[in-house]
Amino acid sequence: MGGTSTDICRYSGTLEHVMETTTAGITIQAPQLDIQTVAAGGGSRLFFRNGLLIVGPESAGAHPGPVCYRKNGYLTVTDANLVLGRILPDYFPKIFGPNADQPLDKEASFAAMVEITEEVNQFIRSNPSSTKKELTVEEVALGFLSVANEEMCRPIRTLTQSRGYNPSDHVLACFGGAGGQHACAVAKVLGIKLIRIHKYSSLLSAYGIALADVVDESQQPVQTVYAKETFPSMFEIFTNLKSNAISRLSTQGFTENEIDFTFYMHMRYDKTDTAIMISANVDNELSLDKFKSVFEHNYRREFGFILENRNIIVDDLRLRANGKSNFDRERKNPVSDNSQTPLQKSTTTVFFDKQFVEVGIYAFGDMLPGQKLVGPALLIDQNSSILIEPQSTARITDTGDVEIVIEGSSEKNLDTDIDPIHLSIFSNRFMSIAEQMGRILQRTAISTNIKERLDFSCALFAPDGGLIANAPHIPVHLGGMQYTVKFQIDHRGLENIKDGDVYLANHPIAGGCHLPDFTVITPVFFKDQKTPVFFVANRGHHADIGGLVPGSMPPNANHIDQEGASFVSFKLVEDHVFQEDRLIEALKAPGNVAGCSAARNISDNIADLNAQIASNRKGIALITSLIEEYSLEVVHAYMRHIQNTAELCVRDMLKRVGGEVLKKTGQSRLVGEDFMDDGTVIKLTVDIDAEDGSATFDFTGTGPESFSSCNAPRAVTMSAITYCLRCLVEKDIPLNNGCLAPIKIVIPDGTILSPSPTAPVVAGNVLTSQRLCDVILRAFDKVAASQGCMNNLVFGDANCGYYETIAGGAGAGNGFHGRSGVHTHMTNTRITDPEILETRFPAVLREWRLRPGSGGNGKYRGGDGLVRKIQFTRPLTLSLLTERRSFQPYGLHGGNAGERGLNLLKRNGRTANIGSKASFQTEPGDILHIATPGGGGYGLAE
Amino acid sequence: MGGTSTDICRYSGTLEHVMETTTAGITIQAPQLDIQTVAAGGGSRLFFRNGLLIVGPESAGAHPGPVCYRKNGYLTVTDANLVLGRILPDYFPKIFGPNADQPLDKEASFAAMVEITEEVNQFIRSNPSSTKKELTVEEVALGFLSVANEEMCRPIRTLTQSRGYNPSDHVLACFGGAGGQHACAVAKVLGIKLIRIHKYSSLLSAYGIALADVVDESQQPVQTVYAKETFPSMFEIFTNLKSNAISRLSTQGFTENEIDFTFYMHMRYDKTDTAIMISANVDNELSLDKFKSVFEHNYRREFGFILENRNIIVDDLRLRANGKSNFDRERKNPVSDNSQTPLQKSTTTVFFDKQFVEVGIYAFGDMLPGQKLVGPALLIDQNSSILIEPQSTARITDTGDVEIVIEGSSEKNLDTDIDPIHLSIFSNRFMSIAEQMGRILQRTAISTNIKERLDFSCALFAPDGGLIANAPHIPVHLGGMQYTVKFQIDHRGLENIKDGDVYLANHPIAGGCHLPDFTVITPVFFKDQKTPVFFVANRGHHADIGGLVPGSMPPNANHIDQEGASFVSFKLVEDHVFQEDRLIEALKAPGNVAGCSAARNISDNIADLNAQIASNRKGIALITSLIEEYSLEVVHAYMRHIQNTAELCVRDMLKRVGGEVLKKTGQSRLVGEDFMDDGTVIKLTVDIDAEDGSATFDFTGTGPESFSSCNAPRAVTMSAITYCLRCLVEKDIPLNNGCLAPIKIVIPDGTILSPSPTAPVVAGNVLTSQRLCDVILRAFDKVAASQGCMNNLVFGDANCGYYETIAGGAGAGNGFHGRSGVHTHMTNTRITDPEILETRFPAVLREWRLRPGSGGNGKYRGGDGLVRKIQFTRPLTLSLLTERRSFQPYGLHGGNAGERGLNLLKRNGRTANIGSKASFQTEPGDILHIATPGGGGYGLAE
Repeated sequence: MGGTSTDICRYSGTLEHVMETTTAGITIQAPQLDIQTVAAGGGSRLFFRNGLLIVGPESAGAHPGPVCYRKNGYLTVTDANLVLGRILPDYFPKIFGPNADQPLDKEASFAAMVEITEEVNQFIRSNPSSTKKELTVEEVALGFLSVANEEMCRPIRTLTQSRGYNPSDHVLACFGGAGGQHACAVAKVLGIKLIRIHKYSSLLSAYGIALADVVDESQQPVQTVYAKETFPSMFEIFTNLKSNAISRLSTQGFTENEIDFTFYMHMRYDKTDTAIMISANVDNELSLDKFKSVFEHNYRREFGFILENRNIIVDDLRLRANGKSNFDRERKNPVSDNSQTPLQKSTTTVFFDKQFVEVGIYAFGDMLPGQKLVGPALLIDQNSSILIEPQSTARITDTGDVEIVIEGSSEKNLDTDIDPIHLSIFSNRFMSIAEQMGRILQRTAISTNIKERLDFSCALFAPDGGLIANAPHIPVHLGGMQYTVKFQIDHRGLENIKDGDVYLANHPIAGGCHLPDFTVITPVFFKDQKTPVFFVANRGHHADIGGLVPGSMPPNANHIDQEGASFVSFKLVEDHVFQEDRLIEALKAPGNVAGCSAARNISDNIADLNAQIASNRKGIALITSLIEEYSLEVVHAYMRHIQNTAELCVRDMLKRVGGEVLKKTGQSRLVGEDFMDDGTVIKLTVDIDAEDGSATFDFTGTGPESFSSCNAPRAVTMSAITYCLRCLVEKDIPLNNGCLAPIKIVIPDGTILSPSPTAPVVAGNVLTSQRLCDVILRAFDKVAASQGCMNNLVFGDANCGYYETIAGGAGAGNGFHGRSGVHTHMTNTRITDPEILETRFPAVLREWRLRPGSGGNGKYRGGDGLVRKIQFTRPLTLSLLTERRSFQPYGLHGGNAGERGLNLLKRNGRTANIGSKASFQTEPGDILHIATPGGGGYGLAE
Repeated sequence: MGGTSTDICRYSGTLEHVMETTTAGITIQAPQLDIQTVAAGGGSRLFFRNGLLIVGPESAGAHPGPVCYRKNGYLTVTDANLVLGRILPDYFPKIFGPNADQPLDKEASFAAMVEITEEVNQFIRSNPSSTKKELTVEEVALGFLSVANEEMCRPIRTLTQSRGYNPSDHVLACFGGAGGQHACAVAKVLGIKLIRIHKYSSLLSAYGIALADVVDESQQPVQTVYAKETFPSMFEIFTNLKSNAISRLSTQGFTENEIDFTFYMHMRYDKTDTAIMISANVDNELSLDKFKSVFEHNYRREFGFILENRNIIVDDLRLRANGKSNFDRERKNPVSDNSQTPLQKSTTTVFFDKQFVEVGIYAFGDMLPGQKLVGPALLIDQNSSILIEPQSTARITDTGDVEIVIEGSSEKNLDTDIDPIHLSIFSNRFMSIAEQMGRILQRTAISTNIKERLDFSCALFAPDGGLIANAPHIPVHLGGMQYTVKFQIDHRGLENIKDGDVYLANHPIAGGCHLPDFTVITPVFFKDQKTPVFFVANRGHHADIGGLVPGSMPPNANHIDQEGASFVSFKLVEDHVFQEDRLIEALKAPGNVAGCSAARNISDNIADLNAQIASNRKGIALITSLIEEYSLEVVHAYMRHIQNTAELCVRDMLKRVGGEVLKKTGQSRLVGEDFMDDGTVIKLTVDIDAEDGSATFDFTGTGPESFSSCNAPRAVTMSAITYCLRCLVEKDIPLNNGCLAPIKIVIPDGTILSPSPTAPVVAGNVLTSQRLCDVILRAFDKVAASQGCMNNLVFGDANCGYYETIAGGAGAGNGFHGRSGVHTHMTNTRITDPEILETRFPAVLREWRLRPGSGGNGKYRGGDGLVRKIQFTRPLTLSLLTERRSFQPYGLHGGNAGERGLNLLKRNGRTANIGSKASFQTEPGDILHIATPGGGGYGLAE
């Protein structure tokens, strides 16, 4: 735990490596330790917004730092610890204030905390239905710490629960100056029983570097089947890697017997994309034949299944040569069974739970191996202070480290009245359930779309179908899933929804966004409740569901039946039995439509649906354990509190915007319009009631539905509005049903935003949705147009099928440039790696780069689009669904428009524009050249 | 001959009626006398422009009238007659001048004629290569009269030669005050030997109305096959019509025996559209069985063939009941064989040919029946003066009318040097050849496209392939046909082009615009000339030539082979033998392309190609007779003179425009750009050399070629430029090769305006061509965008095929509103009548009207588009190719843009936008709703 962030890593004999990490939204593909980072540290700032206690992600930094640093700083986690007596200024270096010679300023921290407490209490008072008592300064400070702790728990759960490990089976080792402050609390939340704090834990990096081994990593791609026949060539490669590593390490003074070797294979099942790094060496010896069993063991643990009869492919061979440091790292001291009471330096008072408690202060240096401290106690040295909470016992080990045994667990005696501290905690917990459902889905699914492109969303719903929490997966799924769950409730009647049933839906009338997105809904029953207490659901994009073209994204459908299999309310599981026969029949049905095929790979559909069911099962388990922890009454109460909070945020935003517009124009009306490439207008009038923060989003005047598939089901508009409101609030609010509560949506039937039930819709979800966001954000005068498109490319034949969406330029806004080469607004999927694309498909990636100058100029520039050129090596059916090939993404406030996109096909020396939507057979040698649109600029360029 | 126009009608026992006439561009469909009108009369103004003597179409009107009217009028035909002594002021009423009390002002006419003569002589002097002597005032005045006479001859040729009658077999009867002035000269030009002038010819209308019968016309549709079985029902209808007519006429005082009855049938061959009105009654008696033979006789005379085994359809029955006037109209006087010399009143001098000749003046009232006057002589009364030219003899008939016998004919001893008078005459003659070729093609073709929609062009070409004259048929054929002829010359070598060969081409590399347009080229040989002395060619749109869809206008072709049969240089006739077998083979070839059909109605292709060959044959006959009349040397010389004249006009215009722009912007550069609906830019930079009036049209920067068929072959750009230059000159200039002589055209290969040889092009011709015109006219800042589209609709199945193009709004310009509901720029075809559409095709026309408000507002408003709704009654393949569904037709100088077009399909309660290009199967009950774009406005609305 550092000043601005906390890093989490799991160690179990070996350090786990990953090939890819994402930090602050940037994905880095390079072998590295599997470390998760969360933006919560001692310097994380504390806010109270719309009824929520919020920690970070903004940091006070070193300058000005926390309030207590005496530099007009911000209220932070450190200040909260100080206010609660957990940090002692006397034991802290006196390096603060303008001359860097003063102690921490506890009074200032307290004063700041008083201020924010008043905000919290104002909020409590403003809620007439609440019987909640006002909070004290210390209760608020402790609340912030609880929120911070809950945030730190999330990445730990990611590395444990969602990988199949129970966190309570682990030891929590913590580092960094602030780590000891939070260790006991975090352990309690996670059910961890043992904490280990190294004697130099606060000097983590410095001490670690001194101890570090010299590691030489080398790797060679092999791309071969794992089989006896290929062992000799792999052995030879490993031998070469090894001799080269020895020669390199010898220049740093290591002899061969000072080097440990670890042999790795990067292994995956044939026709899947998820390779895992497997090490199977024993005592430095290479045993090629052992890799398979380790791979299968790890694969099963990670994904819950193995693929019995499939070849295993070895992508790369990797060698880690470890030149061992000779530093004597662990001097052990004799441990006396020491019952001698440790030497108490002094006492102080620390706030726990409801009150200040007298706590002894002990110096680390005074403690002897084997000596114990029963909490509450503070164990300090010059670099850190460890808080041993009540119901915990610390003990000094023979290596001089601290071991803390946790006896109690955090108590859950909570009532249903809103409590800002628990509001934040529940918000994190609900979100965490959705996130973990997502991880289960990702790792148990088999298709590239879900597993690699991450084209799925998971969410938790109230008994009325209202969204409670949605992991930030795919924005276009946001409003749609809620619609889907509510539809099932209305359609079947709540009383007919049974435990043991799982529903499948993808039809627009049932809240589907387009047919390939299969939504699987499972009701959550609890004990003797007669109706569901929650719903869990997830939506995943299936690679093929039949219809006109492979990939089921036909640009030329005129009827929804041509787009593949559709389900309005299909019992996927009935009374706990998976309905495989009826499912197969339904997936084959599109084959009866003229010119259409049945689903082309039904076994993948079934596998992915099983993963979707499993994901929901995980959600049920997690929500059930939450109910058991807090009681159904409390969980339901906080569910409502969280929805109300989101509503409040949106109303606040609308009141502000409505007031501003009223002042400027005399009426609180916003208007925006833009055109689809076929000339269809999307027209929006937003009438805001600036008094109560409600608004009507009226799409009257929008053009007629399309004969082809640019029709956006109503769920898409709900998603776009939800997403835009979420962006317009400009704060980290929970995203749920409450966001739409103040909103009335008017969409005339027969328009492109409310098409007929038989209208095809596949492109509405992936294209029209983007234009909708542009129009909404234009009405609010916030952001210039983005690329307004997902650039959907599908190709395949009887043997393969591939789908990708290509990023482009984002629009600029007041104060920021548009980002280049990113997915904007309604999608979030990732693109397949060039190596995988070229290995798995008859395609060569000829070019893949930014498209300079395609973003609109302005005071703030629009982001640049991308150029992607793919050459095909055999005949394939190719479909392309794009937009903004006719109309440029507009700028705002004098900013220039971004460049329109362009789709070219190079065939036999002819380079031709294939237009925004196309479907044709490729010929070997064809090069598809896609230039995606840039974003619009904002403001006049200087 | 009236003051501003001359009406021509042919009478041969009965007055011919037509169902439709076009006057000043407006087509009126109502039964009326078959009268052709030409804008040349006594008040037609005289101009000298770019080396040409021009008569009309502007008229001086009554105010201010001709120069001689003493009201600061304009120089007119009347002034020319006055100058030449053909009108005598002494015998004219003294009603001129400010107080309406003065005689005609001959001096003023002469002074004005002196002025224009100086312009003519300046032009002669400015041509250094000419050895032509300067002209006298009288020679110029006589020249203008010759031009006026030649213009009056054109409609006479239309009503005779092009209907299969020889004009010299007719008597010329003339009416109107000025008629007698021109009768002899016109008769000479046409080879007419006898003129008859009624004694009250100058009082035509007044006298005629007094004499007129009372006619009762009634009609009833029957839509039945002409056959014995249907006679009884037809007889009954006629009987009813008759008794109703009798009862109506009886109210006007007619008894049955004062009424003549004429029975008509509106008859046509089954599956053709051209019905003709047949009357076969004998002595007021109805003889139903006689109609067939009269129909066949008339049909053969009109079209040159009959269809032996086809049913004849009777569309309507019609009755004309003629209540005879009792006025005793023709009182005959005894004719003495009167050798008594007529009484000469006085003498005057009249200019003929090269000099003034003394001419006797005779008063009509003094003449006795049977008396003769040998020309030259002037026969006058108070309302008219008849000029009896030399080599003519007039005689008074027993009814008191004048009969003139022409002995000589106009002489043709001309040299090759340019003579402004003959330049105009040749211009009219060349144009007349093209027009008559067109009439032959129209009447001998069998397909609706050519016969009814008039989708064809005919033209005459120089031995080098340069266009000489093109009847104003389809603008988009203009540049293309010249390209096609030149290609054949280059491709085969002039020496290999043989008499007896006819070539067929439609491929873009051979100058084709799109494949359905078949160009048939015939070389013209003369006597012992080794190489062709001219080429005649015509281009006709064939209804189906195979390929992806019926009608051969597929919106979804990606290769030219999918668009049907193509010909680069096919010998349609070789050594006088029609190559039917090879032709059929070529028309079947598209059937070998995947997904494509062979030509679907090869017998129609063959019939139309035969008509095209016949049209060329007519052209050859006409040009041969012209050569025989004037000599090859002279005809070739005037061919070049006319091309040079066109070049001169264009250079004058470019000098003026270039100079203006240079003054305004410092450089003589014009730029224009616009976008196709798919976002492809068409970019034009025109660099004018204001010194010599040349210009480079550079399309560099234009977007890439399309994978589908919006590619415009280079010939299309040539056509568009030719057309626009012709418009920009704003004068009636001959349209030929010379227009493009000062122009250099730069089109980068691989762009939408110069596509690869394998690129499909069908929509380039009908859509991109229109956008090109908009861009050129925008560069010249002349006219706001028009609908930019031809709205091509094709539907059909195995049993029928239909093609139409739908009009829209025209752009406004400085000083004029855009016209509503018209075809603009590159096309000129007409739409099928609702009755024919509904009778012949499984379609019902639900709505067909203007689209109010779709034109852009402005100081000058853009024209409105149209709404057309067609309902289909059985499954058909429908293809739609349209533009301006995305981008609005822009306004200019602050004028608003016109509304974009919209294509909707109503099916099963769903109304969906089918986009700008679509191809699909209709279902019974489907309604196609097409709203065509409006034109852009010009200037700010007040």
